[in-house]
Amino acid sequence: MEKYTYLDNNATTKVDEKVLLDMLPYLKENYANPSSMYEPAQISAKAIEKARKEVANLLGVNDPKTILFTSCATESANTALKGIINQYGTNEKNHIITTQVEHPCVLSVCENFEKKGYKVNYVGVNENGEINTNDILSKITPNTLLIAVMHANNETGAIYPIYEIAHEAKKINKDIKIFVDGVQAAGKISIELENSDIDFYSISGHKFHAPKGVGALYVKKGNLFEPLFHGGHQEKSLRAGTQNTPYIVALGSAAKLAQENLEYEKTEVKRLRDKLENGILSQLKNAKLNSKSKNRVPNTTNIGFEYIEGELILLYLNDLGIYASSGSACTSGSLNPSHVLRAQKVPFTSLHGSIRFSLSKFTTEEEIDYAIEKVPEVIKKLAKISPFQKELNELGL
Amino acid sequence: MEKYTYLDNNATTKVDEKVLLDMLPYLKENYANPSSMYEPAQISAKAIEKARKEVANLLGVNDPKTILFTSCATESANTALKGIINQYGTNEKNHIITTQVEHPCVLSVCENFEKKGYKVNYVGVNENGEINTNDILSKITPNTLLIAVMHANNETGAIYPIYEIAHEAKKINKDIKIFVDGVQAAGKISIELENSDIDFYSISGHKFHAPKGVGALYVKKGNLFEPLFHGGHQEKSLRAGTQNTPYIVALGSAAKLAQENLEYEKTEVKRLRDKLENGILSQLKNAKLNSKSKNRVPNTTNIGFEYIEGELILLYLNDLGIYASSGSACTSGSLNPSHVLRAQKVPFTSLHGSIRFSLSKFTTEEEIDYAIEKVPEVIKKLAKISPFQKELNELGL
Repeated sequence: MEKYTYLDNNATTKVDEKVLLDMLPYLKENYANPSSMYEPAQISAKAIEKARKEVANLLGVNDPKTILFTSCATESANTALKGIINQYGTNEKNHIITTQVEHPCVLSVCENFEKKGYKVNYVGVNENGEINTNDILSKITPNTLLIAVMHANNETGAIYPIYEIAHEAKKINKDIKIFVDGVQAAGKISIELENSDIDFYSISGHKFHAPKGVGALYVKKGNLFEPLFHGGHQEKSLRAGTQNTPYIVALGSAAKLAQENLEYEKTEVKRLRDKLENGILSQLKNAKLNSKSKNRVPNTTNIGFEYIEGELILLYLNDLGIYASSGSACTSGSLNPSHVLRAQKVPFTSLHGSIRFSLSKFTTEEEIDYAIEKVPEVIKKLAKISPFQKELNELGL
Repeated sequence: MEKYTYLDNNATTKVDEKVLLDMLPYLKENYANPSSMYEPAQISAKAIEKARKEVANLLGVNDPKTILFTSCATESANTALKGIINQYGTNEKNHIITTQVEHPCVLSVCENFEKKGYKVNYVGVNENGEINTNDILSKITPNTLLIAVMHANNETGAIYPIYEIAHEAKKINKDIKIFVDGVQAAGKISIELENSDIDFYSISGHKFHAPKGVGALYVKKGNLFEPLFHGGHQEKSLRAGTQNTPYIVALGSAAKLAQENLEYEKTEVKRLRDKLENGILSQLKNAKLNSKSKNRVPNTTNIGFEYIEGELILLYLNDLGIYASSGSACTSGSLNPSHVLRAQKVPFTSLHGSIRFSLSKFTTEEEIDYAIEKVPEVIKKLAKISPFQKELNELGL
């Protein structure tokens, strides 16, 4: 790739060079199977336990044994949700509460259990993409087995009150299991699971500068679940399969860097995100923030451009070397507008023209300045060929 | 690691330097999410499709669309077995046939379904670790849903008549699904799935010089299964989760090299394996081959040392920089003797003293000469402290 402006860090991030350096020995000389008995295998086994500590630190938990390594957050979510339901689900305990704005890896699992006879409530959000704790709690019945709510939304960046939801739900019934998809929170905001009531929490390495293909699942002590992978004794027999030493080391290394970087996220990344937002909004009367929530991760903004087609915006931006997205990469290929924005009841005038820009610690001021210059130019150009000339003229475009 | 003699390639292999070079750009500049729409993402998406073709070639199939990428062979096996059972299993179709010598990732899944009410036949092997096709076929009933037989055994290297089993089973009932764990065959012997009756076939990259943490599953056209991972649209919605571009590229690269290397396996690797076997057996009257099958993968030998404790042998070999194993890495940590050798009815006198040596294309003549010198020395030393002095004296040790 030549010079470009990458503003799609919620889809995936560049591997940090330090992370790559840390993992490379395990792709080269330190290749022994960490389950083997001889000395070189112990080098790998120790590196894995070091990484487990680093991930535990990022999640704010004391006991690294609560961390399982997986191949991705989709695996983590499937492990937790199917594992809980297969372990604890009965004809009576057959009710799941989740939200309309979860990632497909949670929604699909819930929909699949719905087909099998489970009852699922999909709780909505307000116009800023915010969740009301009482909307969740009011759905609890004696049959409720599981509540699944994400920590931060991948499309709008809105942060959800997961600690409060977990705490209040357990007050109503301590046996309810709480799963949190933390993929878009890890590396962006502080996570504190130790004294929380959250039972399961999933993260994905490639959202914070580890490679694609590694994730983790936190399982609070005392929670049983049927494993998704049956087989060997790896990961306490809870996740069979030869451990991916290089990527696990990378996840640990990235977790450590992410922890150290939280202050920078909160200040500099947020400053650049706010600059981008204000820079675009101030130039375009048809541009609106899709989440004005004060409680957003610092790197994400989602802007609706009224009367303009999102795929066209992305195509024009692509030609200028600016990479952003509409919806999530996991739903791309689908022509349906974002399920997250539909849940927020974003009006159809901007639903199809909504673009997510997501920054990272590698995003530069120069890139943001370039985007602030080019995005409005593209929108103005596209306004000229929009079928909604009258409406756009009224907005001064 | 300093200089050492690595003879545990069935546990895992060193990543080939060419494979590493091929994958590195996808850990560096080509990091875009392959599901995204912009141009850099297309570089990743194309690299994945190239790898799919390379893996299809290794498996002898024409249509790359039959190949799904997974995070490991344990995932592949769990996907296939659980997927088949969840898709096609009923109160009538509730019978599984497998063997006593499968890898834990197959045995554990079968045992788990047994607990849920499925009937499973675990077919035995003869004293050479060979499977008789009729022993499988004779177990087929109108309730049989699935037959799972591995291609080559990880501990003895014995090759099983999978094509014949599949063909004959389908003659009895064409609806029976055939799953083959091909982990220890890939890269060692030719695989020809195109005109076979095999429905599902799994492989693992790290057994043929790709990294740990990537595998594939062949699914013959027309076979449905419930996915193990629900979520995004990746891998035709059959395996959700952001694709691990670097490792998928590595798997393709390793598959290509493995295909090119088959002749070398058959000649040089086999020559070195045979030299090792003969070199050890000719010096020790208490050493016996645990599989004399003529039909073995070229890189594996499993030798029983009567009246000697296997873990002690491994410990002494470790001190000499020779790395081998008893049982498989996936069962290590367990003190039970190998389930494979027990199935062969290896006598207790050598069951606890059986060692697997497994070579690769990187194994040198020098390493084999060193092992031929050192292994007998270790055995003779341990014979002196064995509680079976009388028996060992009779064998001249």
